[in-house]
Amino acid sequence: MAGRNYIFETIRDVFARYAYLPIETPAMENLTTLTGKYGEEGDKLLFRILNSGDYLAASGKFDEQGNSLGPLNTAGFTNLICDKGLRYDLTVPFARYVVQHRGDIVFPFKRYQIQPVWRADRPQKGRYREFYQCDVDVIGSNSLLYDAELLQIASEVFSKLSIPVTIRVNHRRILAGIAEYLGSPEKFREMTTAIDKFEKIGADGVNRELKQSGFGDEAIQKLLAVLNVNAEHATEMMHWLEAEVLSGSETGLSGLQELKTVFGYLECQLPADALKTFAFDPALARGLSYYTGTIIEVKANGVGIGSICGGGRYDDLTGVFGMPGVSGTGISFGADRIYDVLNEMKLFPPAIETSARVLVVNFGKQEEAFALKTVSRIREAGIAAEIYPEAGNLKKQFSYADHRKIPLVLIAGPDEISRDHLTLKNMKSGEQIHMHNKDLIAILQKIE
Amino acid sequence: MAGRNYIFETIRDVFARYAYLPIETPAMENLTTLTGKYGEEGDKLLFRILNSGDYLAASGKFDEQGNSLGPLNTAGFTNLICDKGLRYDLTVPFARYVVQHRGDIVFPFKRYQIQPVWRADRPQKGRYREFYQCDVDVIGSNSLLYDAELLQIASEVFSKLSIPVTIRVNHRRILAGIAEYLGSPEKFREMTTAIDKFEKIGADGVNRELKQSGFGDEAIQKLLAVLNVNAEHATEMMHWLEAEVLSGSETGLSGLQELKTVFGYLECQLPADALKTFAFDPALARGLSYYTGTIIEVKANGVGIGSICGGGRYDDLTGVFGMPGVSGTGISFGADRIYDVLNEMKLFPPAIETSARVLVVNFGKQEEAFALKTVSRIREAGIAAEIYPEAGNLKKQFSYADHRKIPLVLIAGPDEISRDHLTLKNMKSGEQIHMHNKDLIAILQKIE
Repeated sequence: MAGRNYIFETIRDVFARYAYLPIETPAMENLTTLTGKYGEEGDKLLFRILNSGDYLAASGKFDEQGNSLGPLNTAGFTNLICDKGLRYDLTVPFARYVVQHRGDIVFPFKRYQIQPVWRADRPQKGRYREFYQCDVDVIGSNSLLYDAELLQIASEVFSKLSIPVTIRVNHRRILAGIAEYLGSPEKFREMTTAIDKFEKIGADGVNRELKQSGFGDEAIQKLLAVLNVNAEHATEMMHWLEAEVLSGSETGLSGLQELKTVFGYLECQLPADALKTFAFDPALARGLSYYTGTIIEVKANGVGIGSICGGGRYDDLTGVFGMPGVSGTGISFGADRIYDVLNEMKLFPPAIETSARVLVVNFGKQEEAFALKTVSRIREAGIAAEIYPEAGNLKKQFSYADHRKIPLVLIAGPDEISRDHLTLKNMKSGEQIHMHNKDLIAILQKIE
Repeated sequence: MAGRNYIFETIRDVFARYAYLPIETPAMENLTTLTGKYGEEGDKLLFRILNSGDYLAASGKFDEQGNSLGPLNTAGFTNLICDKGLRYDLTVPFARYVVQHRGDIVFPFKRYQIQPVWRADRPQKGRYREFYQCDVDVIGSNSLLYDAELLQIASEVFSKLSIPVTIRVNHRRILAGIAEYLGSPEKFREMTTAIDKFEKIGADGVNRELKQSGFGDEAIQKLLAVLNVNAEHATEMMHWLEAEVLSGSETGLSGLQELKTVFGYLECQLPADALKTFAFDPALARGLSYYTGTIIEVKANGVGIGSICGGGRYDDLTGVFGMPGVSGTGISFGADRIYDVLNEMKLFPPAIETSARVLVVNFGKQEEAFALKTVSRIREAGIAAEIYPEAGNLKKQFSYADHRKIPLVLIAGPDEISRDHLTLKNMKSGEQIHMHNKDLIAILQKIE
């Protein structure tokens, strides 16, 4: 929990400086909003809320004595006794929200949303029935400045978390151009699905998949050449694609042009070391048909944990709710995987596990007033502190500090109090500092 | 949402300085954990989650063709098709959590929890099906230092929110002492229930209620005298109670002694103006039989909104889950009511509604690089900023700043850029400041 808070606070702080507003939607949505949006498998994984009251009678399938009026079909009956479900992701509730508040929203609308979602998966390692999603989107603008902004946000978040990353970028229209180059623009979908698996199943696997989809040998070799091309810099790669692959595709060239603009914006704003983390990668596909422009995917370098952030530009967020033409661009941070990366790379700051920085020892009735005043002063200075709740037994008090990983213990015994002095013990080094009471805050603020 | 965040951030900041750790529990609990804990009415208000898969077949009440095997009773059938429910409050999940993690928890355990809860109430003004609760507790210690600490936390939270409050404090054993004084210790519960309604139904109402519960006229007069006593200071009130009311009750005197200790701790730590917000009030009862020691209730002065914070000490958090003797003390902040108070008293800081402090005007291709560098510099200085996403149409850009309540607009047109200058417009005053580019951050930091 402390670790997750650290991730969310870091993310929130970046979002706020980029002027994104937080929104939240209720956990429960109407099932009419949720069903049919996540495929058949998704519908099965929705948590449904039983209607309140006498739902059996209200279903029309039972008489007043509770006798069934005919055989029931589970799926059909479910629709009669459940009107609400728990949200399954943040995208569909956000789309519903936009449609519902269309009159009040000033576009472009920059929002972020950090909330749990629920899926009735069988619980297993690394997969929970309740987990957090963290989405940030700008809707109602086609400006590529926002594509660049979200890339910059991703870069900044992972830099603040000290996670070394590679941020791969591509454009869906470049992929469409590649499909044209292969002579099969109509097989765009099959091609992206195969490309998506490139890392997992390798060239041979992609070869097999594409064959099954009806691609000829020559087309497959051309595609594998594109996927395997090794260019040091994005610019170099872009030149090659422009000359060799996309020259005949208006669509492909327009996608490439957009990506050049986005990289140009990034170069204006990011220092050289941050720019190095970006890679233009024509082998990035992001299978969802949802995306129509820039696409992005982030992985942590050096750990075998999948994508920790991804997203892209889309043309139609809300069409399914009867409000067509709402375009936007957005990315999503995978909090659970980011947690795993921080854990595996030991990148969590040590302080997040501790509650207090300072424990004030409790000597008893005589010294209590002095100790209470001291702990109040420390808190007023913005430093987390507590006093041990019972008097005496110093060993127990120090062992409490140890258990709680409290790094500093402050001792104000009768001897110290009589001279208006204090003793501060560093629990890690064992070092003790004696000081005048008035110097306490300055000294605490100096200790890392 | 921005308002609620402001409240929670203020509260979290105080909790952290007092060394409380945040915990979260899952939204779904087993119904065996939830049912029977909130009374019959509460059980009806629980949201139940339909079991996944073929729940009809699994219920044992239907054959494979979906034919009912006999008449169904709604409540009984519900137990066969729902294993989980949404949490109804934070106390029961916390108790379950403590029992489940008893081996890992280092006592005293100081935790806070800010999460939504769900109740199947008919939606109406001021009552939502999903709302936040915010609980802070210390368990596993009888130390009165914690009773004082929570009172101090309440005082500090409302002071940070600029809400003028009265914090009423009493002790359940003082109430028990009063019941002895009335000659009816066995009617403690009826007495506290009546006292709880004192403010609402007045002396006459309380009189009627007590008569119905079998109190004699003399006892009722004695009680009303206690409820009506008007003492300027807690100390004065305590003296009077000790001498006139509780002298014959060991229980009552021990409660009074505890309260004296708690007030003594507060006097050590709080400035005089904060101390004035506390009132010892024997007419505070907090009906829940749950509480056994100090009880507390906070109201905002000058608005007709009920209690905005309350709680107290309890003896047995987890007995119902088979782990007796876990005592603690805790308070709960009513986020929705605090929101209403801030709203009614116009105490929300103006800045919380805005996303960006600065909007950088977008002049077009030529000026873009300069504008992008500038917006990055502002963000690096920790100030929320954005650039308008499209070039040209200054009127539209200013109107966007207006709509978004962005207080400052930064203009870097061709003229400014050529001289490495900037113009900053204050949207409220209309004032324009011309400055050298290098002075921007210093000037922004000076503007309130």
